[in-house]
Amino acid sequence: MPELYRELNKLADSEMYPFHMPGHKRNLESTPMKGAFRCDITEIDGFDNLHDEEGIILEAEERANRLYGAEKTFFLVNGSSCGVLSAVSAAVREGGRILAARGSHKSFYHGAYLRRLDISYLPYKQDDRYGIPDSYTAEDVKKALDQCDETPQAVFITSPTYEGKCSDVAGIAKVCHERGIPLIVDAAHGAHFGLRRAQGYGENGLGVPDSAVHQGADIVIHSVHKTLPSMTQTALIHVQGKLVDQGLLKRFLRIYQSSSPSYVLMSSIDLCMKEIEENGEEFFTKLLYYREKIQKETAGCRHLQVVGRNDIEDPAKVLIFVNKHAMTGQKLYDILREEYLLQLEMAGNYYALAIISGWDKEAGIDRLITAIKEIDDRIIDNPEGEETSQQCEGVSKSLLPEVAVPLYEAWDAVKEKVNLEKAAGRVSGEFINLYPPGIPILAPGEVVSEEIITQLKGYLDKKMNLQGVDISEDGGGTISVLS
Amino acid sequence: MPELYRELNKLADSEMYPFHMPGHKRNLESTPMKGAFRCDITEIDGFDNLHDEEGIILEAEERANRLYGAEKTFFLVNGSSCGVLSAVSAAVREGGRILAARGSHKSFYHGAYLRRLDISYLPYKQDDRYGIPDSYTAEDVKKALDQCDETPQAVFITSPTYEGKCSDVAGIAKVCHERGIPLIVDAAHGAHFGLRRAQGYGENGLGVPDSAVHQGADIVIHSVHKTLPSMTQTALIHVQGKLVDQGLLKRFLRIYQSSSPSYVLMSSIDLCMKEIEENGEEFFTKLLYYREKIQKETAGCRHLQVVGRNDIEDPAKVLIFVNKHAMTGQKLYDILREEYLLQLEMAGNYYALAIISGWDKEAGIDRLITAIKEIDDRIIDNPEGEETSQQCEGVSKSLLPEVAVPLYEAWDAVKEKVNLEKAAGRVSGEFINLYPPGIPILAPGEVVSEEIITQLKGYLDKKMNLQGVDISEDGGGTISVLS
Repeated sequence: MPELYRELNKLADSEMYPFHMPGHKRNLESTPMKGAFRCDITEIDGFDNLHDEEGIILEAEERANRLYGAEKTFFLVNGSSCGVLSAVSAAVREGGRILAARGSHKSFYHGAYLRRLDISYLPYKQDDRYGIPDSYTAEDVKKALDQCDETPQAVFITSPTYEGKCSDVAGIAKVCHERGIPLIVDAAHGAHFGLRRAQGYGENGLGVPDSAVHQGADIVIHSVHKTLPSMTQTALIHVQGKLVDQGLLKRFLRIYQSSSPSYVLMSSIDLCMKEIEENGEEFFTKLLYYREKIQKETAGCRHLQVVGRNDIEDPAKVLIFVNKHAMTGQKLYDILREEYLLQLEMAGNYYALAIISGWDKEAGIDRLITAIKEIDDRIIDNPEGEETSQQCEGVSKSLLPEVAVPLYEAWDAVKEKVNLEKAAGRVSGEFINLYPPGIPILAPGEVVSEEIITQLKGYLDKKMNLQGVDISEDGGGTISVLS
Repeated sequence: MPELYRELNKLADSEMYPFHMPGHKRNLESTPMKGAFRCDITEIDGFDNLHDEEGIILEAEERANRLYGAEKTFFLVNGSSCGVLSAVSAAVREGGRILAARGSHKSFYHGAYLRRLDISYLPYKQDDRYGIPDSYTAEDVKKALDQCDETPQAVFITSPTYEGKCSDVAGIAKVCHERGIPLIVDAAHGAHFGLRRAQGYGENGLGVPDSAVHQGADIVIHSVHKTLPSMTQTALIHVQGKLVDQGLLKRFLRIYQSSSPSYVLMSSIDLCMKEIEENGEEFFTKLLYYREKIQKETAGCRHLQVVGRNDIEDPAKVLIFVNKHAMTGQKLYDILREEYLLQLEMAGNYYALAIISGWDKEAGIDRLITAIKEIDDRIIDNPEGEETSQQCEGVSKSLLPEVAVPLYEAWDAVKEKVNLEKAAGRVSGEFINLYPPGIPILAPGEVVSEEIITQLKGYLDKKMNLQGVDISEDGGGTISVLS
């Protein structure tokens, strides 16, 4: 079977001269980006069309599809973001209602805004030990659905989370299907899930969780660049079952993606799928070996704790938590970066998050282990203990503000800025997020209560990263509200 | 000043180890895509954030901005498509009205659909000599605006066209601004315009038309991959003046683009801008020399005519027209590809279109010239003359179907398939395009008239490429209409 990358190289090696886009004409003498430019073409004869695939791109999508086993798999060149936009747009009628986890990625909110959806929320849940978003049970979703005045047309959850926690997708899918509505799973961080099971390693995949596709979700979005070896901005969307109109999904994929999709990005997805197909065993063996090694060799640390697989099921996520808050996550992150030249993915309040994959090098893993142990030793010598609370600060969990105006109206409405002190009872005009974890405390259209004002002022006092609040000259905050 | 590509390479050469996305970890031993993977990172410290740029990406955007001279320039990694979606979404209120050229790119229609816009049309104009979409005058736009029942909130045109024809952007901008409404120019094919003037070559840029930015358009979208040496899927959007809310434009750019934008694509835009800044003189000298050489050396052809710069102002477009329709465009295109290994951009009814740039090689240009002359000779020996009409077939020019249901309602409505014969009076549920040029004959919501049915049957009889019409078993056509 022809592969996209091989065919692109055959073209580059041929005598065929390009009198078409792109304007760089694959002129490698002129560019330092030789590897990328060599395979960068437009839709010429023999190279199919992402938006109407019937040849080599369709075959590549089918290769990916075989690994995950959905009815249909599409390549995405505008990231999981465009997959989420398309899923939300296709699964719910314009103006309809959707039930979504409050901590959904911003692309969920963007989709709901564009399609004028009313949103019911699964309240934000937090794992208080580490201050990270928690997963959902089937019971959580059942309860939220029962509480909706009007049955939503779809349910939207994120699993695994950014930090690697997994919801009960199979149970949640069952709850949705009993009501005849589709489940959309934003599994952007879980593209590596289920692939080991697919290789015959049994249901539990010897340490890699099952995929949302196999667990019965109707639409699943996978970033292949996050935990698998594909290029940034590449992703997959899988669809199955009768609850989603696949033609409509395809329409929205055409809308939210460039009509000039990059062959470099597409061939990177295809190479990644081929790598897993052919060398997946090695990829996952290494990933699990690295994960286990980090856990084991840092087990003796007294202040730094690599959170175990019971709490964070995803083996690709290494969350290094600072026990008793002896050091902030940002400080840990900075030391790792500046002193050890280890660039981590993010810093939380009291943790730093590393992403590992089967393409890591053992020398890199060893450097991380050494760094964790040395920093842990240093904390013994020089305890910082800025905070002593064992509970992590986070978005108030049960708090779901009253919706006065739908998101799509409020975000487009005329607004003004007011001091936080004077905002009580007003309607928010923007998103206000605490980062991390980036969950909306207020979305446009929601009423600013006294309780939320107190919460926001608390975050400001602690100089936490509050997005959507401007700091005024007197140190107070101003927010955008509807006029 | 730091440049994105240089900084990415410095990072790749450093000891900094990646415990972050992407999952390929820049592990060059494992991938054949070395050049692309080496510079592929996520938003780590020091590398800014496309959606909230304040460092190296902002500086790169400012470098691009200096070349074009708008108030503000943004990088696009989801093609001009996302630029058009964002421009239309930001310039017109949700549910508002826009005046647009009927032959606009599909991303225009997508934007109008998502934002529930009512559309008034500038009727399709055709250059009948070659059967290609024609440009617009200020008078055309003035007349169309005067005919609107309700003043649109923006005007949307495409200039240059795919085939290289240029509208009077300055005059049209003046007409718009007299009415206090913004002009959006889809100049996806004109990223090279105005850059030579910017280099001090005078107002006419010695043969490269002026840019829509300099001519006063409020928003201009430029594909940098089409005629400049950047990677496929890269583009720029420029905004200026008080008629467009720049904050709103930024919101929509965040919505329509991945939250994991590719640094390879972004650095390719930056390298392209640097190339024009530093070597633009050579780029344009070569482009114009190639264009002139093709014109001059094929001037003696009797059947094949390279359409001159008076008719097609864009020097990057070489439209090879078959006089007296002695051969179809597809046949010309096929011969160039199969016998001469010259891959052209597209085939029209009686022409083939080549794109050239300053990065072409003279040997390639010479191969094209030789091929044109040899094929021309062959036509003398063996005239085909399938058609003798001097007028080119095309979309009926004055025909603007009656709108029964707005696009955004009709495209989402319940539909059924009917035979063309029985479709009179029904409301179209899909786009029906003749390709090329790909202009809608019917958009969703428009009434299927007897006249249009006759026209469509004529195209089917001639086996022209009619998108949106299914061929039924008896050879007739069926289309989708509202139930």
